[in-house]
Amino acid sequence: MEQTAPAVRSQPIVRFGAAAPERREDRVSVEEPLEIRVGGETLAVTMRTPGHDFDLAAGWLVAEGIVRRPEDIVRIEHCRESRSPEEEGNVVIVRTTEPAGAHLDRARRLLLTSSSCGLCGKGSIESLRGNFPPVVSAARTDPAVLRKLPDTLRRAQANFAETGGLHAAGIFSLSGELYVCREDIGRHNAVDKAIGSLFRQGRLPLSETILAVSGRSSFEIVQKALAASIPVIAAVSAPSSLAIDLARESGIALVGFLREGGFNLYSGEDRLSAPVPAR
Amino acid sequence: MEQTAPAVRSQPIVRFGAAAPERREDRVSVEEPLEIRVGGETLAVTMRTPGHDFDLAAGWLVAEGIVRRPEDIVRIEHCRESRSPEEEGNVVIVRTTEPAGAHLDRARRLLLTSSSCGLCGKGSIESLRGNFPPVVSAARTDPAVLRKLPDTLRRAQANFAETGGLHAAGIFSLSGELYVCREDIGRHNAVDKAIGSLFRQGRLPLSETILAVSGRSSFEIVQKALAASIPVIAAVSAPSSLAIDLARESGIALVGFLREGGFNLYSGEDRLSAPVPAR
Repeated sequence: MEQTAPAVRSQPIVRFGAAAPERREDRVSVEEPLEIRVGGETLAVTMRTPGHDFDLAAGWLVAEGIVRRPEDIVRIEHCRESRSPEEEGNVVIVRTTEPAGAHLDRARRLLLTSSSCGLCGKGSIESLRGNFPPVVSAARTDPAVLRKLPDTLRRAQANFAETGGLHAAGIFSLSGELYVCREDIGRHNAVDKAIGSLFRQGRLPLSETILAVSGRSSFEIVQKALAASIPVIAAVSAPSSLAIDLARESGIALVGFLREGGFNLYSGEDRLSAPVPAR
Repeated sequence: MEQTAPAVRSQPIVRFGAAAPERREDRVSVEEPLEIRVGGETLAVTMRTPGHDFDLAAGWLVAEGIVRRPEDIVRIEHCRESRSPEEEGNVVIVRTTEPAGAHLDRARRLLLTSSSCGLCGKGSIESLRGNFPPVVSAARTDPAVLRKLPDTLRRAQANFAETGGLHAAGIFSLSGELYVCREDIGRHNAVDKAIGSLFRQGRLPLSETILAVSGRSSFEIVQKALAASIPVIAAVSAPSSLAIDLARESGIALVGFLREGGFNLYSGEDRLSAPVPAR
């Protein structure tokens, strides 16, 4: 059983508004480090909002190419040998099968290689993409479906309204049905949690889904979608240049500025079931 | 001389609005990896917006506690031995003095320790804070000064209006004069660039300044301010729980939701030259 920790806490503040300053209670998003250990080794320490830690760890391992099927994870649990009460719940230990162990070695080598030989912008997109092939999927979606995603995502965000400080990632069917929504103080963590949740249910590859994110889309977000074979990404805010380049080379439709009923399409025209003007 | 690379690029898109889809040119923020090498070793690869790379590298080294005075950096330059034209400008090589080399060793040991023994939330704030003592400064600022910062910061953002995709960090005097503003696709990079710029001018410690950021304040942002001895942080959006905890323990006033003329004060009441109601 996964422990649950609060994602939001109460905080005394002084409010300076139009009137005289006054003391209030505010609700703030919790940020704490999560350490992910595999095979006795710390692979990552990420600053995250507690909750759905197992989904986060699983999704992170998917994005790194270390696990590919739910069976690759033999066990996933919080560390029970914390040295202090506060440490409890902030360390996740994953036991993987032997094949996953081999991927782990490769992932570690890749990591070392890429950080010691000088990554570059356009030239090494292939290497930044890691080992993941482009998304193979005939998936198409309708602009009308896309236009409705932000409202659905916002309604599914339990904690955002309280704090104004949490990102959301939702995975939807091509017709706009919400499969899972996860929140986190970090955009990339929210995506890991959403993908990790479906991964643990045996539902990867996600080649007939849409990933919707509440903020911007960076290279990292596209990379995580690619790892899960997600063919459509819809973001409420702006994409980066590298996100667009990676999406285009990976067969992923990238939508940005999805708000007020409109959106920009940055790549993947063939994934929209709507006529677009000729070039 | 530092090379300049474009921070914004033109991008053909299809716009889906109220009318029929149409082809347009959009302007997007550039995201490319920057590798920071010190003493022949890669210390970090960060996804950043090109421009002010030397400030970014210097600010990052300040935040990691590796350099403390401008003289600690003997030379800083882009790698000239790129293996491809695209790689050019994405690798910064820093040569430090011997003492900085010693700090580098300690920083590396700390990094190893903290990621292998299980960080935790409240218990190890001290260890997360690194080697930095609390900010020693009698600095106070006026609520009226704080209320004006977002407008000044926005006006100083050359590229945001074009792309909607860049964060800004500005460092101000206690009376609201802007010393430096830097933009980046990553909030933490914008802060590194702003602090790095003043560091290279020999203006640290910044114990009589305000750091203003366009987005939220996380633990990492507070940590970077602490490394530069900045006593006041003002963010346009929400803080995280750990940002508040670290600010309080470090003698830093933390302001959030600085917008529409109001703000919330999360820590550091004594740094405001305004009466606050008794508890």
